[in-house]
Amino acid sequence: MNNFEFKNPTKIIFGKDTIEKLESEIPSDAKVLLLYGGGSIKKNGIYEQVTKALSKVDVTEFGGIPANPEYAVLMEALQVIKDKGINYLLAVGGGSVIDGTKFLSAAAVYDGDTPWDILTKNVKTQKGMPFGTVLTLPATGSEMNSGAVITRAETKEKLAMGGPGLFPEFSILDPQVISSIPERQLVNGITDAFTHVLEQYMTYPIGASLQDRFAESILQTLIEVAPKVIKDPTDYKPAADFMWSCTMALNGLIQKGVPGDWAVHMMGHELTALFGIDHARTLAVIAPSHYKYNIEAKKEKLAQYGERVWNITEGSIDDKAYAAIEKTEAFFQGLGIDTKLSDYTEDYEGTAEEISKRFTARGWKGLGENQDLSPDKVEKIVKMAY
Amino acid sequence: MNNFEFKNPTKIIFGKDTIEKLESEIPSDAKVLLLYGGGSIKKNGIYEQVTKALSKVDVTEFGGIPANPEYAVLMEALQVIKDKGINYLLAVGGGSVIDGTKFLSAAAVYDGDTPWDILTKNVKTQKGMPFGTVLTLPATGSEMNSGAVITRAETKEKLAMGGPGLFPEFSILDPQVISSIPERQLVNGITDAFTHVLEQYMTYPIGASLQDRFAESILQTLIEVAPKVIKDPTDYKPAADFMWSCTMALNGLIQKGVPGDWAVHMMGHELTALFGIDHARTLAVIAPSHYKYNIEAKKEKLAQYGERVWNITEGSIDDKAYAAIEKTEAFFQGLGIDTKLSDYTEDYEGTAEEISKRFTARGWKGLGENQDLSPDKVEKIVKMAY
Repeated sequence: MNNFEFKNPTKIIFGKDTIEKLESEIPSDAKVLLLYGGGSIKKNGIYEQVTKALSKVDVTEFGGIPANPEYAVLMEALQVIKDKGINYLLAVGGGSVIDGTKFLSAAAVYDGDTPWDILTKNVKTQKGMPFGTVLTLPATGSEMNSGAVITRAETKEKLAMGGPGLFPEFSILDPQVISSIPERQLVNGITDAFTHVLEQYMTYPIGASLQDRFAESILQTLIEVAPKVIKDPTDYKPAADFMWSCTMALNGLIQKGVPGDWAVHMMGHELTALFGIDHARTLAVIAPSHYKYNIEAKKEKLAQYGERVWNITEGSIDDKAYAAIEKTEAFFQGLGIDTKLSDYTEDYEGTAEEISKRFTARGWKGLGENQDLSPDKVEKIVKMAY
Repeated sequence: MNNFEFKNPTKIIFGKDTIEKLESEIPSDAKVLLLYGGGSIKKNGIYEQVTKALSKVDVTEFGGIPANPEYAVLMEALQVIKDKGINYLLAVGGGSVIDGTKFLSAAAVYDGDTPWDILTKNVKTQKGMPFGTVLTLPATGSEMNSGAVITRAETKEKLAMGGPGLFPEFSILDPQVISSIPERQLVNGITDAFTHVLEQYMTYPIGASLQDRFAESILQTLIEVAPKVIKDPTDYKPAADFMWSCTMALNGLIQKGVPGDWAVHMMGHELTALFGIDHARTLAVIAPSHYKYNIEAKKEKLAQYGERVWNITEGSIDDKAYAAIEKTEAFFQGLGIDTKLSDYTEDYEGTAEEISKRFTARGWKGLGENQDLSPDKVEKIVKMAY
């Protein structure tokens, strides 16, 4: 096991009818900016629950944060924060709204030249503007971690940021919100959380037995609840298991003491930036090719995953590893998620070269847990995913 | 899944040679009381590492905190805190030293009549004196939770306390400390952590799939590493898995959203108070009888545990449940832990009645996850454990 430090101060408030607890979590004298996305919260009753709980607080609203939170939109919100003297942020939404709120938490206190620096100069925010979240879409785990990914349409870029000061002060997780989530977003959420676990697990054996088993536990639970959640998102029990699994998939716990890969995300982000493909679907496109290409480096863990999660008992390590990749791809497809780039766009020729070129331009010499995935290898993996 | 709230702000610093990081965790202007136990830290090099890291800080020492931290000794330490103007506590030890330090953290700021109230009047400390820990003995999980158990020899009592203000600010976990732990304490630690998981898991099915699997993950890991740690405590890999498993067994995570039992501990505490039996061994004495007596209420979870943790595939639910209890008792015995009260004392007659009488006197009408274990049932369980 590698040495690690772990601290996660976010307060989770989980369960039925918990949105009303907002009232006791936000200081009564706060000037709150309520951030949300496309307005679904105004159709499913969540907006009413939130505003009722905040009836005694000074609240300004900022809606319209898009999926893949857009820098230009967030700069408008930053202006509102300054104009209105906002001192507390409340994200009501999924990963995009929460990620956008994290950027604003950092940008509101940043004293450099331009908030763009936060994304390009690896600024680690030590203390941002305080914020909480009401999660409306389980997927990214952003509700209990300190990272975010921001998109800039102007330059077709998608960049990561974070810092120890960007954990939500609290996050309210009411699994009842799942009942009104469209199936497309549900399956995206399952795929996203599943891939988050894979990125932290599918590397090489480092002998961290408990972290391995925790990772496998999340994968097993997602596999178990996925069909139930899709069949009936109003069924509370699988909804609750699904929601908690997504949070645990990326709250830092399973990545402590172990190597991380994250190359699937790095490549996937480019597919979203280039084609606007849903984040989760880009992961399902890249992951199978990535694991096949890196079979030598990853086969021990792939085989362990095959044995423990998919009950693959027959064959050699290599056989089990390949079978596990097939099971994974079939799992995504069973959710209705296409796993080839050509399923999403006819304009895929040249994509691998373009992504390779971008990585070279950014000076990204070696991705993955062994830092050996050079841009030419990335090109091959993306081509395998056509 | 039940509704829950989860917040655990303790910073974990885990790994090789991490004790030196003390220097950056304790404010340089703090007046520190360094608390430890019987002095083993002066023989195994830990004391030197700690004092070297604190060479620039004002440190007063208080050694001699016994296993089952004794109220009278802690009152002496409280006097030192007052006399010396101490404002930061550092526990260097196992669960007893850390628990004692938590009591002091609470007592140092308590403004009631007597610190004894903290134990008898269910005082929930919202903000104690800040403290950190250097863990020298994996077992209790006290390094990452906000609870403690204090003993008072005068009245032969062992009482629990806690509060949201009693999480350590940081805990340093260097698995290398395990190399100098005597086997007796190692097997106690394994047994203690194992039973902590059982208390949070062996109840009735509530459909919290992820919590179940996380609990099973800890049990599986403890079973896997136990023989390795005992065989060679200098082997870093199993030592690290063991240490992290003990912490995760009782840091709040696996108990969220699920019912808890804790009757094994309640009965076990009395055996320590009455006979001075090691805490972990009292759990191994009580647990098998407790599960047999409550087989009807617990058989679904016992069978699930049997299937997933012990690979018991044959028989009915009842068969699997009983087989799982047998496996558990055999596991403890395999560690060299006796599982009958008569193995520890010849003077066991009347113990069941005495414990039952004590519970009645305290008004404890119903223990366990169903709050239906009345003192007369407790009497039967303890008798089964003779």
